[in-house]
Amino acid sequence: MIRGRKLWFLVLCAWSAFASAQVLPSWNEGEAKARIVTFVQAVTDKKGKEYVPPAGRIAVFDNDGTLWSEQPLYFQFVFMLEQLKASGAPMPDPHDQKALLAAMGQATSGMTVAAYDRKIRDWLAKARHPKFKRPYTDLTFLPMKELLAYLRANGFKTYIVSGGSVEFMRPWAEKSYGIPPEQVIGSQQEVKFEVKDGKPVLTREPKFAFIDDGPGKPVGIYRHIGRRPIAAFGNSDGDLQMLQFTAAGEGQRLMLIVHHDDAEREFAYDRASHIGKLDKAWDEAKANNWIVASMKSDWKKVFAFEK
Amino acid sequence: MIRGRKLWFLVLCAWSAFASAQVLPSWNEGEAKARIVTFVQAVTDKKGKEYVPPAGRIAVFDNDGTLWSEQPLYFQFVFMLEQLKASGAPMPDPHDQKALLAAMGQATSGMTVAAYDRKIRDWLAKARHPKFKRPYTDLTFLPMKELLAYLRANGFKTYIVSGGSVEFMRPWAEKSYGIPPEQVIGSQQEVKFEVKDGKPVLTREPKFAFIDDGPGKPVGIYRHIGRRPIAAFGNSDGDLQMLQFTAAGEGQRLMLIVHHDDAEREFAYDRASHIGKLDKAWDEAKANNWIVASMKSDWKKVFAFEK
Repeated sequence: MIRGRKLWFLVLCAWSAFASAQVLPSWNEGEAKARIVTFVQAVTDKKGKEYVPPAGRIAVFDNDGTLWSEQPLYFQFVFMLEQLKASGAPMPDPHDQKALLAAMGQATSGMTVAAYDRKIRDWLAKARHPKFKRPYTDLTFLPMKELLAYLRANGFKTYIVSGGSVEFMRPWAEKSYGIPPEQVIGSQQEVKFEVKDGKPVLTREPKFAFIDDGPGKPVGIYRHIGRRPIAAFGNSDGDLQMLQFTAAGEGQRLMLIVHHDDAEREFAYDRASHIGKLDKAWDEAKANNWIVASMKSDWKKVFAFEK
Repeated sequence: MIRGRKLWFLVLCAWSAFASAQVLPSWNEGEAKARIVTFVQAVTDKKGKEYVPPAGRIAVFDNDGTLWSEQPLYFQFVFMLEQLKASGAPMPDPHDQKALLAAMGQATSGMTVAAYDRKIRDWLAKARHPKFKRPYTDLTFLPMKELLAYLRANGFKTYIVSGGSVEFMRPWAEKSYGIPPEQVIGSQQEVKFEVKDGKPVLTREPKFAFIDDGPGKPVGIYRHIGRRPIAAFGNSDGDLQMLQFTAAGEGQRLMLIVHHDDAEREFAYDRASHIGKLDKAWDEAKANNWIVASMKSDWKKVFAFEK
């Protein structure tokens, strides 16, 4: 009898280890993965006291630095600088976000949204990253893609909430992340409806309508979703308010910060970086016991193309 | 053999009549219903040349006058006027939309979005419509609710795209229409993220951020959905640009205008009305063969509470 029990126990242990390896396979076994899985089990357990009905299972993800790389310069900025250069416009400082957006707003003003969309798609198809010599859309993080799919398989609705503009993300977010255009929240150029030669079109205006960064992120979530997320994922101080806003709700919450500490497989940067500075959000993560996932030690693979 | 065939034919006819009566039961058999059903069959027939994959099946609905009543004054305006009156603020002309929105923006500035949400819910619970002596949320149109459900059953994603503010619609749109908060597109107050007494909150600002009416509707659709709808439903000139934008896409399209011509069961108004004026959009509907549904002759019932 005892022998039988022991056998069952061993079988159960083996099964549990096997099952855990099946979930989020590119994540190493460790605190980050364990806490993600525990959270998802808690909010989906109908008999548990932390149960959240599917409609409330909203998860928001920053994009640059959280779902794909952002060094040595936000990829959208690389696109913008190349466009400006080609158009002969005066070149702004590539690290002055405001000046760059203003210059790009001017340069593309009057363009239809369809024409701008084609420019983005054309660029994405041929541009290559300086370090990896690959299309930028190859530089999405495999463990985060598994996480998106895992959450959706558990009834979550997954959103991007990014400082990048919606136009730049929508063309590839569905294929890369399984996130449809209507679940991409981002910065927004003013656009204008007009009937041109009998055809209704939307054209770009020089002004930005909305900057979805920092304190703008909870505003974008409120405008677009109208519910408070129960899980939020970011990597920098630009995500701090989104993480705070998510954390402030009642019941179980999951807040996770991706820490870029792998110079070999990707890049290593945090408090002192111009791009994706992680300083205040890091302190707040430590103070509030949010998960800080190390790319180096929590991820088996960063990119799908790795050997 | 022929007898057998004839019998089968009769059975098929009877079945087809029965099946048609099952779909959209509050719609009378007629051109409007037939064209809706034909459109839905065409875009969902995998073998047909008009097939649209589920991701592209986006349907947009105006709210005031299309999904619920809007006379003698937009219900949101009734709410706003009562709030202003109670606050002792100077009263604007109830038909001057801009003045009313500005006054309300001022009166609610600094309020958290949660507090404003409670005000709306409290008002909706106790306010009664002057003609029907019922809660305003009873005044949703049964045939349109059937249409929403019918489209969703056929893989459509249904959105509200309304001049009304999102705050006023989200608290009841899911229960009344089956439309979740994140599929409610509307006018938007500026809101601001702040940490107050250690708690992150969103507070209202005096300015409107976006007016989702007329030419604003295709802009709202672009910002929020990022795809062109294949079906659009409205009732007034404020919906014209949304209908034009929908019509301008390729492939099968469905554009429908609800015509308020039933003074007995609801209200009768069109070209000369202050509220829900239907003039240019009517001419364009006639010129482009969009469906104009008559509430009087196309709908068996207007409201669920009718005998």
